[in-house]
Amino acid sequence: MDVIKVSANSRTSAVAGAIAGVIREHKHAEVQAIGAGAVNQSIKAMVLAKNYLHSEGVDIVCSPEFVEIEIEGKVRTAIKLTVDPR
Amino acid sequence: MDVIKVSANSRTSAVAGAIAGVIREHKHAEVQAIGAGAVNQSIKAMVLAKNYLHSEGVDIVCSPEFVEIEIEGKVRTAIKLTVDPR
Repeated sequence: MDVIKVSANSRTSAVAGAIAGVIREHKHAEVQAIGAGAVNQSIKAMVLAKNYLHSEGVDIVCSPEFVEIEIEGKVRTAIKLTVDPR
Repeated sequence: MDVIKVSANSRTSAVAGAIAGVIREHKHAEVQAIGAGAVNQSIKAMVLAKNYLHSEGVDIVCSPEFVEIEIEGKVRTAIKLTVDPR
């Protein structure tokens, strides 16, 4: 299962579709964002995904944590949102 | 129970302490943020609050939604994070 990587320029509807699709298939999704704009897009996408899945009787919740990731040799702190059915 | 209002300038440790305190007392907390900076501070505070409460054996998750709020006569879209024990 791939981590869904979100940037400040990601379209929320596309990210929401990805979250909903991964939840349908794996009952678990992980979203990674670096920076305030990316975290905001992730949370807005989470709202949309929650609404998509609600109509299918699935209620999702998220649990955020900090993760260190390396990008082009530099260590950055990202937010990882773990998404699961409640 | 009051909604915890977060701005882009809120200190994450202060917000995290508020979330953990409200969860301890009410087993339920609500966080409201307007704008990317405020949403980012809220999620970072949620990570810290999760870590505080984890040591007490409590695992919290959040569920975001859009809410319309009126500020100085103008309607703004905020993110409300509902925080509950898993």
